[in-house]
Amino acid sequence: MTFRSLLLLAGSFSVTIALPSSAQFISQQPDGPQMSDETRACIDCHEAFQPGIVGDWKESRHAESSPALALERTVVERRVSSDSIPANLKNVVVGCYECHSQNAGSHKDNFDHFGYRINVVVTPNDCKTCHAVEANQYALGKKAHAVDNLEKNPVFHLLVEQTIGRLDVKKDKLAHSKPSASTENSTCFACHGTKVEVIGTKQLSTDQGDIEIPVLSNWPNHGVGRINPDGSRGACTACHPRHSFSIETARKPYTCAQCHLQPDVPAWDVYAESKHGNIMMSKESDYDWNAVPWIPGKHLRAPSCATCHNSLLTSNDNTVLVDRTHDFGARLWVRLFGLPYATAQPKSGATHTIKNKEGQPLPVTFGGEPAKSYLIDEKEQSTRRKTMTAVCRTCHGTDLVNNHFANLDTAVTESNKMTATTTALMSAAWKAKQADPSNPFDEYLEREWVESWLFYANSIRYAAAMSGPDYATFKYGWWELTKRIREMNEKKGKR
Amino acid sequence: MTFRSLLLLAGSFSVTIALPSSAQFISQQPDGPQMSDETRACIDCHEAFQPGIVGDWKESRHAESSPALALERTVVERRVSSDSIPANLKNVVVGCYECHSQNAGSHKDNFDHFGYRINVVVTPNDCKTCHAVEANQYALGKKAHAVDNLEKNPVFHLLVEQTIGRLDVKKDKLAHSKPSASTENSTCFACHGTKVEVIGTKQLSTDQGDIEIPVLSNWPNHGVGRINPDGSRGACTACHPRHSFSIETARKPYTCAQCHLQPDVPAWDVYAESKHGNIMMSKESDYDWNAVPWIPGKHLRAPSCATCHNSLLTSNDNTVLVDRTHDFGARLWVRLFGLPYATAQPKSGATHTIKNKEGQPLPVTFGGEPAKSYLIDEKEQSTRRKTMTAVCRTCHGTDLVNNHFANLDTAVTESNKMTATTTALMSAAWKAKQADPSNPFDEYLEREWVESWLFYANSIRYAAAMSGPDYATFKYGWWELTKRIREMNEKKGKR
Amino acid sequence: MTFRSLLLLAGSFSVTIALPSSAQFISQQPDGPQMSDETRACIDCHEAFQPGIVGDWKESRHAESSPALALERTVVERRVSSDSIPANLKNVVVGCYECHSQNAGSHKDNFDHFGYRINVVVTPNDCKTCHAVEANQYALGKKAHAVDNLEKNPVFHLLVEQTIGRLDVKKDKLAHSKPSASTENSTCFACHGTKVEVIGTKQLSTDQGDIEIPVLSNWPNHGVGRINPDGSRGACTACHPRHSFSIETARKPYTCAQCHLQPDVPAWDVYAESKHGNIMMSKESDYDWNAVPWIPGKHLRAPSCATCHNSLLTSNDNTVLVDRTHDFGARLWVRLFGLPYATAQPKSGATHTIKNKEGQPLPVTFGGEPAKSYLIDEKEQSTRRKTMTAVCRTCHGTDLVNNHFANLDTAVTESNKMTATTTALMSAAWKAKQADPSNPFDEYLEREWVESWLFYANSIRYAAAMSGPDYATFKYGWWELTKRIREMNEKKGKR
Repeated sequence: MTFRSLLLLAGSFSVTIALPSSAQFISQQPDGPQMSDETRACIDCHEAFQPGIVGDWKESRHAESSPALALERTVVERRVSSDSIPANLKNVVVGCYECHSQNAGSHKDNFDHFGYRINVVVTPNDCKTCHAVEANQYALGKKAHAVDNLEKNPVFHLLVEQTIGRLDVKKDKLAHSKPSASTENSTCFACHGTKVEVIGTKQLSTDQGDIEIPVLSNWPNHGVGRINPDGSRGACTACHPRHSFSIETARKPYTCAQCHLQPDVPAWDVYAESKHGNIMMSKESDYDWNAVPWIPGKHLRAPSCATCHNSLLTSNDNTVLVDRTHDFGARLWVRLFGLPYATAQPKSGATHTIKNKEGQPLPVTFGGEPAKSYLIDEKEQSTRRKTMTAVCRTCHGTDLVNNHFANLDTAVTESNKMTATTTALMSAAWKAKQADPSNPFDEYLEREWVESWLFYANSIRYAAAMSGPDYATFKYGWWELTKRIREMNEKKGKR
Repeated sequence: MTFRSLLLLAGSFSVTIALPSSAQFISQQPDGPQMSDETRACIDCHEAFQPGIVGDWKESRHAESSPALALERTVVERRVSSDSIPANLKNVVVGCYECHSQNAGSHKDNFDHFGYRINVVVTPNDCKTCHAVEANQYALGKKAHAVDNLEKNPVFHLLVEQTIGRLDVKKDKLAHSKPSASTENSTCFACHGTKVEVIGTKQLSTDQGDIEIPVLSNWPNHGVGRINPDGSRGACTACHPRHSFSIETARKPYTCAQCHLQPDVPAWDVYAESKHGNIMMSKESDYDWNAVPWIPGKHLRAPSCATCHNSLLTSNDNTVLVDRTHDFGARLWVRLFGLPYATAQPKSGATHTIKNKEGQPLPVTFGGEPAKSYLIDEKEQSTRRKTMTAVCRTCHGTDLVNNHFANLDTAVTESNKMTATTTALMSAAWKAKQADPSNPFDEYLEREWVESWLFYANSIRYAAAMSGPDYATFKYGWWELTKRIREMNEKKGKR
Repeated sequence: MTFRSLLLLAGSFSVTIALPSSAQFISQQPDGPQMSDETRACIDCHEAFQPGIVGDWKESRHAESSPALALERTVVERRVSSDSIPANLKNVVVGCYECHSQNAGSHKDNFDHFGYRINVVVTPNDCKTCHAVEANQYALGKKAHAVDNLEKNPVFHLLVEQTIGRLDVKKDKLAHSKPSASTENSTCFACHGTKVEVIGTKQLSTDQGDIEIPVLSNWPNHGVGRINPDGSRGACTACHPRHSFSIETARKPYTCAQCHLQPDVPAWDVYAESKHGNIMMSKESDYDWNAVPWIPGKHLRAPSCATCHNSLLTSNDNTVLVDRTHDFGARLWVRLFGLPYATAQPKSGATHTIKNKEGQPLPVTFGGEPAKSYLIDEKEQSTRRKTMTAVCRTCHGTDLVNNHFANLDTAVTESNKMTATTTALMSAAWKAKQADPSNPFDEYLEREWVESWLFYANSIRYAAAMSGPDYATFKYGWWELTKRIREMNEKKGKR
C-alpha cells in the first residue's frame, strides 16, 4: 500500500520520501514530448495521494503536447499565443513543475517543498508565459477588476455589507455587524475573487509528516478577479478548472453558470430556456467542444456562452468570422446588469474609478443620466454591435439579427423607465420619511426597490438579449416588476 | 477567402455572385438522392455566409433522404405521412429550395432572391406537403390557436396587458401603458406566437450588397401558434428547430422546457425532479432518440415528454401500443393549467370561443361551474385516460397506474377547492371595497390571488400528474398556497 | 400480434396463457449464466405487456451475471457483500422471480399470480440476500427512519399538517382540515416513504383478463423510508430505480436531486452551481460511472454526490482511500438541514426518539442548546471529519481542505446566530400577542419565521459545505435572510 511505504525522516520542513515509481500510470506517448524530471518527481508522490488531480492532468492537452509542438500549428489552429517561450519549457509537456515554478521571484507564496521551490497559486501572469494574448486581453476587462469593483466602490461595498452582514437582536434593537472574512469568501468574493496574501508560515500535519507551508489569506478561491500573491489579478482556473485546464469545460455553459445565475445575473437561466440552449442541450454530445478554430455548423450547432462572447469562429475554410477575445465585454456595447439603469459599457474594466455628475461611482446618476466620459462612445458601440452581429450571422440573416437587437434596445429603454418608476416611488418614501436614505440598502422597502432593478429590470434585459421569453414574463421580470410597483405604490403613505 | 471572392455587381435588388463551388463540403452519398439545382445554388452561397445553418441541415435526415425513399418504409417506420408527394420533390433531398419555395402563391412573404422566388417563412402548410397527418392533427389543438387564445380572450388579454404593460409615475400617480409590440414579442407571444405579416419592402445592407426584402411584422418568432404570411397557424420549428428539424431534439424535454416552465406551467421543473426525469438524465446517452417507431425498453428507458404526450410507441415486434399524435392535448382528459380551476379538456383548440354561464370566455365560472357544452364529455375523458394508461402500461402494472391517476384526481379536486378558498377571500375584499373588481389583475392583492391559482394550485396538479413531490411541497405548491391563504385571511379588513 | 394471441381461460383468479416464446428478445450470453425457468415465464408474458421494464432489466448487470460469478471478484471489485447466498440463486441471473419471490413467508403482499407466488413489493430485506452489508448500513441511518421521523415527531407532524392541509372558508372563517392520504403520498411522504400495507384483495380488470391482487395502501411509493409489507424499512429503488438497479444512476446527482432540492434541502441546486458540478456536467460522458472500485482521476473527474457521501474510493492500485457506506450520514459530523439550528449528527437514525431539555423531540432547544446525549460526541465528529477530508484529499491538499471546512464552521455558527435573531423576533411577537404560539406553524408570520431557518439559514450552510457561493448570496440565503429579518423587525408592533 503506497501510503504506508512513506519513510518520514525528521527535519524542520523537509521530508525525504521513497515511493515506488508510478511510471506505469503515466500514459505519455513514447515518441511524444516527455515530462521534465521535476514534474515526474511531483507526479511520483501526488499520484498516490491525489490521484484525482493527477488523473485530470494526464487527460489534458498539457500532458500530451509541448509549447514547441503547439507553435508548429497554423495561427488559427494555435492555442498558444506567446511569440517566444523559454527554451527550458519548450520541449517538455506542461506539467506540475512548469506551472508551479513560474516567476518564482515575484511569488510571495513560493516555498520549499521537499527540495523544490513551488508556488502555491498559479496566476494569470504565469499562464502568460505561453498564453500572452489571452492574459493581456483578460487584464483589460471587468473580470480582472472584480475585487476592486466591489470593494473600492462605496456603493457596492455598502450593498455587500448589508446583504451578508450579521444581524443580532441586542436590547430589543437590531444590531448590524460587518461581514466576516469567511462569509465574504463563501459568498460575493467567491465569484469576484479574494485577496490572497501570504500572512505567515505554519506547520501542517499531513499523512506524509509535518511540513512548513505559507499561510495564505482568503484561500482557497478561484474568483475571476482574485488578487494573487504575485500581485497579478484573476484566475484562469475560474473557467479552465485545474488540472485539466480544458477548453471544452470553458466552452460549456455550466462553467459560466457558476456565477452568472438568477436572480441577479440570469445568463445561464435565460440561456437554458432559449432555443439556443434547447438545441445545445439536445445535441451536446455531437459537438466537437475542443476544436480550434471553432467552426459553426461543423463543430457546433447552436452557440454556447463562449461562442458568442469570446471564441474564435471561422468558416469551413478557416476564414476568420470573429476573432477570439478574453476580454469578455469586448463584444458588448450595453451593460445590462448590476446597476439600476443599463447603459453603455465602460471604457475601463476598473469601473470603481467612474464618477457620475452627482459624484457617485456609478455610470449613471440616480435620475438616469450617463457618465459619458467614462463610457464607450457611439462609434465604439456600433463597432461592437457589428462584431456581435457577425457572430449571429454565422447562422442567421441580417434582417433577423437587426430585428432581434431592436427588441433588445426596447427592453433596455423600457426596463430603464420602469427603474425610473420604482426609483420615483422610493424617493417619495424617503422624502416622506417612510424610509431613511442615509443607508439606501438596509430597510425592507429599500431591499424591495433594489430587487426591482437588480433582479427584475435586469432579467427583462437578459431575456431580451438571449431570447428567454418565459423567464422575463413570469419567472423574474415583468410579472414581478409590475407587481412590485403596484405594491410600492399602494403602500405609499401607509407605512 | 470566400467572403472576399464576392463580386458585387450593381442592380436595384439583384447581385450577381461568383463563388467557388462548395461541393467539397457536401457529404451527399454518391449513390443516394441528390440536391436539386436550386438547393445547390442556395448552399453555394449560404455555406460561406451562414455555415451554421448549412451545417445543421447537412447533418439532418432531410439532407440524406428523399420523399421517395421515405415512402419505401413500412407504415410504422415512416416519417412521411402524405399519400402523394409532387413528382418534382420526390427524388431529391429535402433542401433549402424545396421548403422555401412551397406554395409560393399563398405566401405574401415570397420575394425575388438573386433570381429565385423564396418564402422567408416556412409554415405548417408547407411542411404539410410531406407531413400531412401531423399538420392536420396540429391544427386541431390549442397550440395552433395560441395567439387568438390570448388575444381574442378578453380575460387573458387583460392579464397580458397588466403583466407586461409599462408603469410610469406621472404627477404622483401611477400611469399604465399598453405593452409595446416589441415587449409582447419578447415575452408572452414569443411562446404563443406572433402575427407575422408583410407590411412593406425595404432595402437591406448586407455584406453581399443591398438587397430588397419583405418587411415582416413581429419577426423573428417561432411560437407554437404563429400566424404566418400564408395564413396558416403554427411553427413546426418551435419543436423541430431549423435547420436540422430533428426528431431527437423534439423528443428531448429541453425543447418543451422552452415554454413549459415554472412558475406558471412547471412541466419541465416537475419532470426534472421526477423519477422519470432522474432516469432519463442518467441514461440519456444510451437512448436511441431517433428511432421510428419508438420502442420502450429497446430505444428508451424512462419517458421524455414526447413519449407520453405524442410519440408512436410499439412493442419489439412493431405492434402499435399507442399511436402518434401531433395534437398535444389528444391524450389528456383534464386541463391543468392557465386557469383558476382545472376542468375537462375543451372540445376545440380555439378556447377563446368558449362561453361559460356567466358569459366569460372561460371553461368554468368564477364559482367553479364548468361550461360543459364546450368541454369533452365523460366518455371522451375516459377514452383519453385509457390511451394515457396504455402509455404508462408499457412499464407499469395497471393497478399502479390506476392508483397514480387516482392521486391526480384528488390533486385536481383539492387544488380546485383551494382556489375556491382564495377566490372567496378575494371576493370578500372586493365586496369590502379593499380592492376594485373592475380590473381584476391590476392591484397587488389581485396579483397575489392570481398567483394562488396560476402558480400554486397549478403546480400542485402538475406535480401530482408527473410525480414531482418536492416541487409541490415546498417549491411552488402547498407551502406557498397555504401561506398565501393565511396571509390573505389575516389581512382581511386591515387594508 | 402478441396481445391478441392471449387465450384467456376462466378461473377465479388464475388465467392460463399461451404466448409465443419471446426468447428471441433475450440477449443472454450463451455461455453465461441463464435465467431460471420461473423468470423465463415472467419475461415471456411481461415482455409483450411491459416491454419497458423488461428492456431495463435486460440491459442491467442483474441480467448478465449471477451471484456465483459476482463472488469470484476481489473484495474491492465486488458488488455483492453477502457471505453465503442460497444455492438455488447462486448460478442463475438475478431475474424477476429471484427478487419477487424472496422471503415469501414474511411478505403479506405475496399472492398467486398465474400459478407463481409473487411479492408485489421487493424490499431491502429481499435485496439483503445478496447485499447484506449495504442493507445493514442503510437500516442504521436517518433515511430508513424517514417515515417515523416525520410522523412520530409531533413537531414535524404539525408542520406537515399545516403545510399540506386543506383550508376552506366556512362562515367567513378559515377552516383547516388534516391532509388527505393521497396528498400526503404525493408530497412529503413521496420522498420520506409511505406505509404500504395489505388492506384486502380485489379483482383487477386487465387486458389479460380479471385477476385477483392484494390491495396495498399508499402505493405506489419509492420513498427512502417506506414501511414495507414485510415489515422492513426503506426502498433501494429510491436510488437504484427498478428494473435496471443501476449503480450509474445512483451515482449521478440527478438521483439525489429528486428529493434534495431547493428551497428546503438545496443539495442539488448548490452542487449544480459549484465547481464540482460544473466539471461533472462538462465531462459527464467521459466518466466511467459503473466502475467498482471507483478511482478518482481514472474513472471520474470532479465528484458527484455519491463520491463524497457513500462510494468506495481507491487509488490506481486499488488501495482503499475511503470505504463504501450505505448509511448516508456516516461521513457527516454536523446536521445542516430541516432544523432551526445546525448541530452534531444524531447517534441514531430514529431522530424522533430524541428529547431535548425542554422536552421537545428536537436535537436543540428553542434557545439553541443541543441535546448532547442523543448526538455524536466530539471524538466521533472528528473521526467523520477526517473521513470526509480523506475524500477531499483525493484531489486537494490538506491545507485547502482545512480552510474549506473552517468556512463551513463559520457558516454554521453565523447561520445559527441568525436563527437566534429571527427566533427572538418571533418570540417577541408571540409575547406581544401578535401571534399565537399554541400552533407555531399556522400564522403568516410564523411561516415567515420557518422560512428563515428551513430555507435561508439552511441554504447558507449548504452553500458553504459544497461551495455554491451565488446560491447563498442572492438565490436563497443571505439576501433573503437579512431582508426577512429587516421585515420582521420593522413590522414589530405594527400588526
